[in-house]
Amino acid sequence: MKNIILASASPRRKALLEQIGLSFDVIVSKVSENTNSVHPEDVVKDLAYQKAKKVFDSHRDSIVIGADTVVYNDGKKLGKPTGYDNWKEMLRSLSGHRHYVYTGVCVLWCGENNNTHILSFAEPTKVMVHELTDEDINEYILKGEAIDKAGGYGIQGTFARFVDSIEGDYNNVVGLPVARLYQELKRLELI
Amino acid sequence: MKNIILASASPRRKALLEQIGLSFDVIVSKVSENTNSVHPEDVVKDLAYQKAKKVFDSHRDSIVIGADTVVYNDGKKLGKPTGYDNWKEMLRSLSGHRHYVYTGVCVLWCGENNNTHILSFAEPTKVMVHELTDEDINEYILKGEAIDKAGGYGIQGTFARFVDSIEGDYNNVVGLPVARLYQELKRLELI
Repeated sequence: MKNIILASASPRRKALLEQIGLSFDVIVSKVSENTNSVHPEDVVKDLAYQKAKKVFDSHRDSIVIGADTVVYNDGKKLGKPTGYDNWKEMLRSLSGHRHYVYTGVCVLWCGENNNTHILSFAEPTKVMVHELTDEDINEYILKGEAIDKAGGYGIQGTFARFVDSIEGDYNNVVGLPVARLYQELKRLELI
Repeated sequence: MKNIILASASPRRKALLEQIGLSFDVIVSKVSENTNSVHPEDVVKDLAYQKAKKVFDSHRDSIVIGADTVVYNDGKKLGKPTGYDNWKEMLRSLSGHRHYVYTGVCVLWCGENNNTHILSFAEPTKVMVHELTDEDINEYILKGEAIDKAGGYGIQGTFARFVDSIEGDYNNVVGLPVARLYQELKRLELI
């Protein structure tokens, strides 16, 4: 079996791959994260590809996994909060409402004749959030635990108190749809 | 605010209550876990009540939280595996199929005039599992990580590779529906 490389700096993605029992290394290359795609599923697949490709170019003997996660609310992409007011507005827009989290995954590896193979998919998860009061929002922001997270929240932290329910893969919201990834790697006989 | 006691020995429930930022103690009293109820929601509420009541009787100045989780598949309750063959059969019954996890929660506290107040609810989550091969099942069992878990699996461990999707609260499957619990405690002004 080939060596697996996770091309992501996210400690959450690392923990999830470990959780399902894979052995792998983490190697990250900085990419500019640009895409001309518009649809969420295309956006995350493009960015996952760019992240995987950058590492794969110098590690063609390995299986390289890239991933990108975005949060969409009413068709609007929510990035990382840019400041207190922006963060507050973001969480207000999630209150009492359902939104979607998409994670794109790209796997690159070499087959026979040094051909590059690619597996690419985007996984959606629907997330329903309870009504948030201004006090809820202020208290959450002051914890500062999700300042670096798209959508301004982390489902695996304190925000769990506000997540009514989900439809789809929970780990996809954390940052990596490990069930689908594992099933695909098995199907392709890469693990 | 009153002191909160979690009447459960489960380290997973403790971690979940910590995750949503509550301060509490853990005090456990052994109960026999008997119920005459038949419907899953009644079963878990009965057992959660018994666990909370046993601790509350000697801690009436606190808010006591009890919980019980069961796995139901096609109307059949799945307990903890009793041996290798039973475990294999259990996982086979989950393969390529949806089942339900119910957690019952019971909160007991004293109001004015030393009256006992009770909050009781059962939360269901639907879990869809991928097709499992005999190899998948054998490999999973040999890890031994879920020998003490109802249904023979732990969603927060290696089994995540097989969980296609869920509908409901993920933490409910882990063992405590913390979102609903938090919302109810807030509504009742207990926190």
